Amino acid sequence: MRAPELRARVVHANQELVRHGLVHLTWGNVSECDREEGIIAIKPSGVSYAELTAESIVIIDWDGKTVDGDLKPSSDLATHLEIFRNFDGVGGVTHTHSTAATAFSQAGKPLPCFGTTHADHFFGEVPLVRELNEEEVAEAYEENTGKAIVEHFQNAGLDPLAVPACLQKFHAPFIWGASAMDSVKNAVALEMCCDMALKTLSLNPDAQALPSHILRKHYLRKHGPGAYYGQG
Amino acid sequence: MRAPELRARVVHANQELVRHGLVHLTWGNVSECDREEGIIAIKPSGVSYAELTAESIVIIDWDGKTVDGDLKPSSDLATHLEIFRNFDGVGGVTHTHSTAATAFSQAGKPLPCFGTTHADHFFGEVPLVRELNEEEVAEAYEENTGKAIVEHFQNAGLDPLAVPACLQKFHAPFIWGASAMDSVKNAVALEMCCDMALKTLSLNPDAQALPSHILRKHYLRKHGPGAYYGQG
Amino acid sequence: MRAPELRARVVHANQELVRHGLVHLTWGNVSECDREEGIIAIKPSGVSYAELTAESIVIIDWDGKTVDGDLKPSSDLATHLEIFRNFDGVGGVTHTHSTAATAFSQAGKPLPCFGTTHADHFFGEVPLVRELNEEEVAEAYEENTGKAIVEHFQNAGLDPLAVPACLQKFHAPFIWGASAMDSVKNAVALEMCCDMALKTLSLNPDAQALPSHILRKHYLRKHGPGAYYGQG
Amino acid sequence: MRAPELRARVVHANQELVRHGLVHLTWGNVSECDREEGIIAIKPSGVSYAELTAESIVIIDWDGKTVDGDLKPSSDLATHLEIFRNFDGVGGVTHTHSTAATAFSQAGKPLPCFGTTHADHFFGEVPLVRELNEEEVAEAYEENTGKAIVEHFQNAGLDPLAVPACLQKFHAPFIWGASAMDSVKNAVALEMCCDMALKTLSLNPDAQALPSHILRKHYLRKHGPGAYYGQG
Repeated sequence: MRAPELRARVVHANQELVRHGLVHLTWGNVSECDREEGIIAIKPSGVSYAELTAESIVIIDWDGKTVDGDLKPSSDLATHLEIFRNFDGVGGVTHTHSTAATAFSQAGKPLPCFGTTHADHFFGEVPLVRELNEEEVAEAYEENTGKAIVEHFQNAGLDPLAVPACLQKFHAPFIWGASAMDSVKNAVALEMCCDMALKTLSLNPDAQALPSHILRKHYLRKHGPGAYYGQG
Repeated sequence: MRAPELRARVVHANQELVRHGLVHLTWGNVSECDREEGIIAIKPSGVSYAELTAESIVIIDWDGKTVDGDLKPSSDLATHLEIFRNFDGVGGVTHTHSTAATAFSQAGKPLPCFGTTHADHFFGEVPLVRELNEEEVAEAYEENTGKAIVEHFQNAGLDPLAVPACLQKFHAPFIWGASAMDSVKNAVALEMCCDMALKTLSLNPDAQALPSHILRKHYLRKHGPGAYYGQG
Repeated sequence: MRAPELRARVVHANQELVRHGLVHLTWGNVSECDREEGIIAIKPSGVSYAELTAESIVIIDWDGKTVDGDLKPSSDLATHLEIFRNFDGVGGVTHTHSTAATAFSQAGKPLPCFGTTHADHFFGEVPLVRELNEEEVAEAYEENTGKAIVEHFQNAGLDPLAVPACLQKFHAPFIWGASAMDSVKNAVALEMCCDMALKTLSLNPDAQALPSHILRKHYLRKHGPGAYYGQG
Repeated sequence: MRAPELRARVVHANQELVRHGLVHLTWGNVSECDREEGIIAIKPSGVSYAELTAESIVIIDWDGKTVDGDLKPSSDLATHLEIFRNFDGVGGVTHTHSTAATAFSQAGKPLPCFGTTHADHFFGEVPLVRELNEEEVAEAYEENTGKAIVEHFQNAGLDPLAVPACLQKFHAPFIWGASAMDSVKNAVALEMCCDMALKTLSLNPDAQALPSHILRKHYLRKHGPGAYYGQG
């Protein structure tokens, strides 16, 4: 995929964040990478969604250097890069401060898998990733945020393609997928599941996680080898 | 009713789910049957609502075989079929993962009849239907979901036309009605009543159900033999 | 005011309910009276807001008989009539099942005056009116609903122009004002104040009512003899 | 800046309140001052946002006298003036009754800094300012509201440019910024942070404030001397 096509896809994915109510002001960004070309397209920093054009999307190489574009990339670029470099098969990354997912991050709670809506998108609990310490913040805040995410998945033995999201403590969600739009869809699913979980816990503080045989069925009918959901 | 008319009605009913905010992404489906013709029209699986056209609606016979249409039907088709086959007088079925109704499903709670908004649509509590066990999931998940719903209404002696909805544990609501649009209206009513009930319980955890003489009055002035609500 | 003008005002006020998100499906109605002409204009029963036209508005005389219009009036007409007949100075009545106000009704709680938003519209607590007993429902449900409202205000010594709304237990709010649009604005204010109160109580179950000197100041700067809010 | 330009900016900023869902009916107002010209432009009192035009914006001098415009200024003018006179560097002031921020005001709670969304806009807790006593209300309600805000920041040693907002007890938020639009953006951020905080506390009543090293990092990467967020 060449830069113009990648830019068009990334500007569209960023605008979808607005349409789905996941961002206010300039609080969010979506990127997509082309692993063959070794390039990443990402939203420019602090630009309003109404003013976003394909030309304003910044093209970055695998080392994080801008190779095309007049604007500065999102300040969260280094976090996106860590995710692309360490999670094989990820083609798109989304970061938002969507309300319910951010509430889970601020409450310091992972998102339990309370039902099939969650199981259709995430194969089990969406983890809480720790906050950074003083040294990590001072040294390279955004890069170390990405490293903390990668480290969490590795230590927990979690497959990032099966659980394509996390909640960072005191911060907000990071979400990924096979493409930019796929990561946006997962961001929508995460926000909806967090909103449903808030209400589930309000009704029943002792709500139980979905039994594993139903989790497997729902996840696999959509994402497994014999998936039969959709027009496949 | 012939297939073209049925398709037009079903595509409209599916689009109404979006307009009423009951679905995100592709999380929902509406069907309608014509009992004389022995056919059912249903949303194709995984197709986005923006791309939905009358032509994309799938026509199914009473045995669940596609008789017209190029796409695969909704993966929930077998659940719809069980409802049509066992609940006489039902002409339309809706399935959503709307937020408040799904929260009740996940919390494992039926929806109490807290007021007249509920009584205008459902003659008493909307029941919680159990989740499936491992064997039922492995054997025929979607069909057995429908069987569990039908079994619940039969065992509880509930009239499915008087209480045209249920909440499946760990999953989400299934709703029905005289037609596709009627099931969508009941889906709107269910979501609003669940949202009101969440807030009612937040204000008063000991909130009482509507007295039966008011339940009867409200339900019957709209649905009883001497109904006087509407233009008759 | 002649019937055509009254109809135009009432169709507009009903449509404003939709724009402000106070009604779903056909759950609400607004009326306006002309005391000199002795007529009331009201929404027809069960007609969707999208199909509502000025011609469809029903004109009623002071005894509740239809004097012009082809459709049946709202089934809540008799409640509106009781309010017009007993509360001097009221020119418009609104009934909705808006979410937060209905939650207070279902919880069986009056709405405390927690702040200046409330004080700008209602001079103190919005009362909870009791539900009807079996005899009252059987005899004349809608008329007796209006009588219970009037009786509550009389027994409590409440001025219906200073507190232009109530919450009926197990049911929903009734709201009034100097005109149809004024009652709709009060319905918006009531719903917002109920939503804020739900959140206030979630943050602080012991939240206190607004001190009376601030209640008086806010209410009177907008509605008192020396009111200076607005363009006069 | 001349009056016509100031009016255009202020009418736009007021309309942005509506677009962001921060105001209902006429519950809010935005002003901007030009310190060189010694003038302030503010919304007229009680005018609906749909009818607001640049010509309707009122131009006020530093003593609070109308120097241009046919309408009465917002009844909250004196509060805006106190803020402009005492907080150097403030160019715009916004007042709303947005739902979640008003709930914190009514609950009598300051807004803790629970996460980075908050830290991107406010350098720590957003304070609760006391309500006025009887004498202060009787004497000069709106002016004394401004004095209470200024006094709070001075006594607490708070920099109003680093924490550009407060919540007044029993009332609602006041927000400011470098310009009218900047104060509106801070009003959006405050409402979102209050909504997230409500949900954070619902999930975890013991939620902790953001560690100070992350607060500093997020606030300073956007507002500090070496800020690198945005296009600079």
